[in-house]
Amino acid sequence: MKRYLMTPGPTPVAPETQLAMAQPIIHHRAPQFMEILGAVREDLKYLFQTQQEVLIFAATGTGAMEGAVANTLSAGDTALVIDGGKFGERWTELCTVYGVKVDRIPVEWGRAVDPKEVVRRLEANPAIKAVFVQANETSTGVQHPVKELAQVTKTRPGTILVVDAISALGGYELPMDEWGIDVQVAGSQKAMMLPPGLAFAALSPKAWEFVKTSTLPKYYFDFAKQLKSQAKNQTAYTSAVSLILGLKEVLTRIRQDGLEKIYAHNRRLSEAAKAAVKAMGLTLYAKDNPSVVLTAVEAPAGVDGQKVVAELRKQGIWIAGGQAQAKGKIFRIAHMGYIDTVDLIGTIAGLEGVLKALGYRVKLGVGVTAAQEILTKEAGA
Amino acid sequence: MKRYLMTPGPTPVAPETQLAMAQPIIHHRAPQFMEILGAVREDLKYLFQTQQEVLIFAATGTGAMEGAVANTLSAGDTALVIDGGKFGERWTELCTVYGVKVDRIPVEWGRAVDPKEVVRRLEANPAIKAVFVQANETSTGVQHPVKELAQVTKTRPGTILVVDAISALGGYELPMDEWGIDVQVAGSQKAMMLPPGLAFAALSPKAWEFVKTSTLPKYYFDFAKQLKSQAKNQTAYTSAVSLILGLKEVLTRIRQDGLEKIYAHNRRLSEAAKAAVKAMGLTLYAKDNPSVVLTAVEAPAGVDGQKVVAELRKQGIWIAGGQAQAKGKIFRIAHMGYIDTVDLIGTIAGLEGVLKALGYRVKLGVGVTAAQEILTKEAGA
Repeated sequence: MKRYLMTPGPTPVAPETQLAMAQPIIHHRAPQFMEILGAVREDLKYLFQTQQEVLIFAATGTGAMEGAVANTLSAGDTALVIDGGKFGERWTELCTVYGVKVDRIPVEWGRAVDPKEVVRRLEANPAIKAVFVQANETSTGVQHPVKELAQVTKTRPGTILVVDAISALGGYELPMDEWGIDVQVAGSQKAMMLPPGLAFAALSPKAWEFVKTSTLPKYYFDFAKQLKSQAKNQTAYTSAVSLILGLKEVLTRIRQDGLEKIYAHNRRLSEAAKAAVKAMGLTLYAKDNPSVVLTAVEAPAGVDGQKVVAELRKQGIWIAGGQAQAKGKIFRIAHMGYIDTVDLIGTIAGLEGVLKALGYRVKLGVGVTAAQEILTKEAGA
Repeated sequence: MKRYLMTPGPTPVAPETQLAMAQPIIHHRAPQFMEILGAVREDLKYLFQTQQEVLIFAATGTGAMEGAVANTLSAGDTALVIDGGKFGERWTELCTVYGVKVDRIPVEWGRAVDPKEVVRRLEANPAIKAVFVQANETSTGVQHPVKELAQVTKTRPGTILVVDAISALGGYELPMDEWGIDVQVAGSQKAMMLPPGLAFAALSPKAWEFVKTSTLPKYYFDFAKQLKSQAKNQTAYTSAVSLILGLKEVLTRIRQDGLEKIYAHNRRLSEAAKAAVKAMGLTLYAKDNPSVVLTAVEAPAGVDGQKVVAELRKQGIWIAGGQAQAKGKIFRIAHMGYIDTVDLIGTIAGLEGVLKALGYRVKLGVGVTAAQEILTKEAGA
């Protein structure tokens, strides 16, 4: 059965990338590999929209999140964590493990943080050294207002903004230097169109100053050590060679297409997906800033969200269910990375059929047509 | 140009494995993936020769080494580190980063540790909670006497033996449970015949008791959390899906061939390599326990070891030079994993030619013939 991976990570890998990764292994200290890493380093700066070095780790995104805490803070420091979903919770867990005190802003699932609340907390507690947030909270399909948050932290020399961009980077505008993001963390298996196994982190000059005073223990995710190695076109420890061969292929393609074109494509898919579910009488889970890279939908009354996922999977269409408190209540359709209009139209058609079979009253074709209207209009524009 | 990867990691990847890794990405929380992980978990126990769970991380071996420290010890604890090469040094660095006091046994490069010295140190300092060692010190081509060390630590309830088996596992006998190894760490890119990007750790029941009292911070490499996830055929964080598809293929093949046969193959290659370099009038760098998985050779007088590596690479044959204090003085030929007699004979022939061109007096064919004699005899036996 053909498989359509519409999950918010891992996402599909293009055949060109599979071929690149199937090349014979190169030794990671050889000149041939160093040349590849040199090219990758430049292209990563373009993707991150930064002049700073983008650190590359053989790990998944959580590893780089841990590194962001362990390399910038010390035990006893205070962090402000914006917690509006499952990945927001992870920042609290990480800080707690390292003895960093957490001032937490709980955000209702489906909502985005209010930047004014962040200002209030920072003013109430000048000891806060870092604000942790998700650019895109994958568990709820909501984008937090990173640009506005950066405007707040930019004016405070003692506070950095750490952004989990794992599911956002490459999906929509997140210009690190222009906005003033201090630490931006990413992973390979989302809009970067690679298998899981590479994690990334880029730091502003301000964040690198924080690294100098951080006393938390770190070794595998030692940012300063990795920075030094990358200056020599190496990684501090063994490189994940096959994934980096894939990374080179993907980044070349991203650079050729251009971020503007990729973002426009994603916006178009997102608008179509959202128009489709609304036309089907469904409600978005996101009440604020619905995500460009995935569409989280409330399961209609009487329908189990997990059942929708399971039934679609029988047809080869893989979407995601809800996590933790949203389990069973929602389902999530991702449209990031190597996903096109055919994938999306087919998924919507499948969803209509499954919901109808599960007892939800929906006229076949209503979602598909709504999506087509967006996709046709935009393609011709 | 064809490429012969005779380096001690990464090692060549078989075409069958490349194909397995090029399969479409499966979501890491889907039943299809959980089934694969279930099979992999069983086969890893066979490879490790243990009844315990083998933890799987998306990382390279150093990550699992860090986990071995962070999960079993606490700040202020004392560790005994056997340091006979570049990877021995890594244990000291890791312990130091985490505030673990290090009692270090410096071992001359090219030598193996004397177990009697380990006994003396343990008797002199009963506070020692862990002994850290490399099974195979890749930088010198020496095997430390892990079996004898385990006999020492087995009788001491307060001390565990932590073995870096990154370049040893799957290469030669290292039966974890039978010998009484407490923590065994491995990586995917050596005798396991995969690209770099997976790290492994297995713990004895005694080591799991140490985990309970350890207070060092850990998150990505949290062993207890990973154990819990694997019981449900999951990994705690996103799985490195493509590498695990490759792992399944490799482990199936290892199990079909059987460890005995693989070990015998490696012994045969090792004996042939060592006979060849001796016949060429060269000297092994290892003065004790030369490694089964690689042959470290002293560069003859007047010949730069790095030059030997560079010249061979021009012919497509990739061997390794010396590291740190051994740089320029030695070269290293690995024969682990997906390496056969053709690769080895060709490498020896290439080495003869290169040494001759660099001014070393060697009769062409003398090393090849010595290797052939071993390989022919053993194949017929």
